[in-house]
Amino acid sequence: MRFGPLIDQLMEAFQCLPGVGPKSAQRMTLHLLERDRAGGELLARALERALARVGRCSRCRNLSEAQLCPICASDRRDHSVLCVVETPADVLAVEQAGGYAGLYFVLLGRLSPIDGIGPAELGLDLLAQRVRDEGVKEVILATNPTVEGEATAYFITEQLRGAGVAVSRIAHGVPLGGELEYVDGGTLQHAFQGRKPV
Amino acid sequence: MRFGPLIDQLMEAFQCLPGVGPKSAQRMTLHLLERDRAGGELLARALERALARVGRCSRCRNLSEAQLCPICASDRRDHSVLCVVETPADVLAVEQAGGYAGLYFVLLGRLSPIDGIGPAELGLDLLAQRVRDEGVKEVILATNPTVEGEATAYFITEQLRGAGVAVSRIAHGVPLGGELEYVDGGTLQHAFQGRKPV
Repeated sequence: MRFGPLIDQLMEAFQCLPGVGPKSAQRMTLHLLERDRAGGELLARALERALARVGRCSRCRNLSEAQLCPICASDRRDHSVLCVVETPADVLAVEQAGGYAGLYFVLLGRLSPIDGIGPAELGLDLLAQRVRDEGVKEVILATNPTVEGEATAYFITEQLRGAGVAVSRIAHGVPLGGELEYVDGGTLQHAFQGRKPV
Repeated sequence: MRFGPLIDQLMEAFQCLPGVGPKSAQRMTLHLLERDRAGGELLARALERALARVGRCSRCRNLSEAQLCPICASDRRDHSVLCVVETPADVLAVEQAGGYAGLYFVLLGRLSPIDGIGPAELGLDLLAQRVRDEGVKEVILATNPTVEGEATAYFITEQLRGAGVAVSRIAHGVPLGGELEYVDGGTLQHAFQGRKPV
C-alpha cells in the first residue's frame, strides 16, 4: 500500500485481463492515472455498458447486444449455409478473413466429458432444430483441429446424418506462405490425405 | 461491426492501455464477456473510483487519494531525507526494493526544453521550498541515468548549492547478478569512475 487502497484495487483489478500480471497491471494503472484519464473514463464506461447489455444471440449463440446478432439478422447473408465454430473469437477470425457469407452456430466450447461438457452444453439440439426448420442446405464444421474439436465435428456429423443436409469439414493442410520444411508432421499428413487432383 | 457497436467500442477502448493493440484488445473483450463478467465489473468500478478520487499529494506530487500521500503522512519515515525521482513508478520501484525510509519528491518528468518542460513544470520551486522549510538534511537524486535525467540532476544540484543540504546521486554501475561480458560500455565506464576503495 504505497499510493492508497483505490490505486491498489485498480492494479489488482487489471489482473483479471488475460496476459496481464502484476507488472503490466501497475504500468496500465499508472499510465491511465498519469497520462490518459480521458481514455480511462471511456474504458470504464464502455466496459460497464457492454457488461450490462451484451448477451447471446438466440439463434447462433454468438455474443450479441440484441436478441438476434447482426449476422443472423442480416438478409444479405446466405441463410442456407451454417458454419459451426467453437467460440465468438472464431467467428471474428472467419469474418476478418472474408469470403464467407453464410450464418454461424457458436458452440461456446467443445465436447469434453471430463469437464462435464456434453451435447446439451454445446446447444446441439438447437443446431439440429435449426437445420431441420430453417432450410439449411450445408453445414460447414470449423471446429479446431484438436482432439476435442475433431471429436465434436465427428459427433455433429453423426447427429446430422439423415437430416438431408450436406456436412463438410474445413480443409487442414499446409498454411499459405508456409514452407514444407517448417510444417509439423500432423499437418503434413493431413495435407497429403486431403490432396486434390489438379 | 460483427457483434455490435458496444463490443466494438470496448475493443477500441482497451487500446488506450499501454502495450495493448487490436488483437489483445479483442482477446480481453471476449475474455471478460465470455468468462469473467464479475472481474469486468470489478475493473469498471475500480477504474471509475480511482479516476474520480486519485489526485496528487500536495507535498511530494506523487499520486494520492488524500491531500497527503501515505508516505508523506507517515511519522515512521525519516522526514530529513528526500529522494527525488521522475515518476510515481520510480517511487514504487524504490519502495519495492526496500531499505529506504525517507520521503520522496516526484518531478513528474525531466528537464526537456524541446517539450516545454522546464524547472516550473517539475515543481523545482516547491522542492527548494521544502528543503528550506522542512529541515531536510539530505537530498538523494534518483533521476534516470539518461541525458535528460542527468541534466535534471545537475540542475537540481546547482539550485540547492548553498542551501546547507547534502546532495547525493545514486550509484550507477554493474547491476547485481550482471556479468561484465554482457554489460554495456557506458555502464562499465560509470562503474570504473565510481569505484570505491575496499
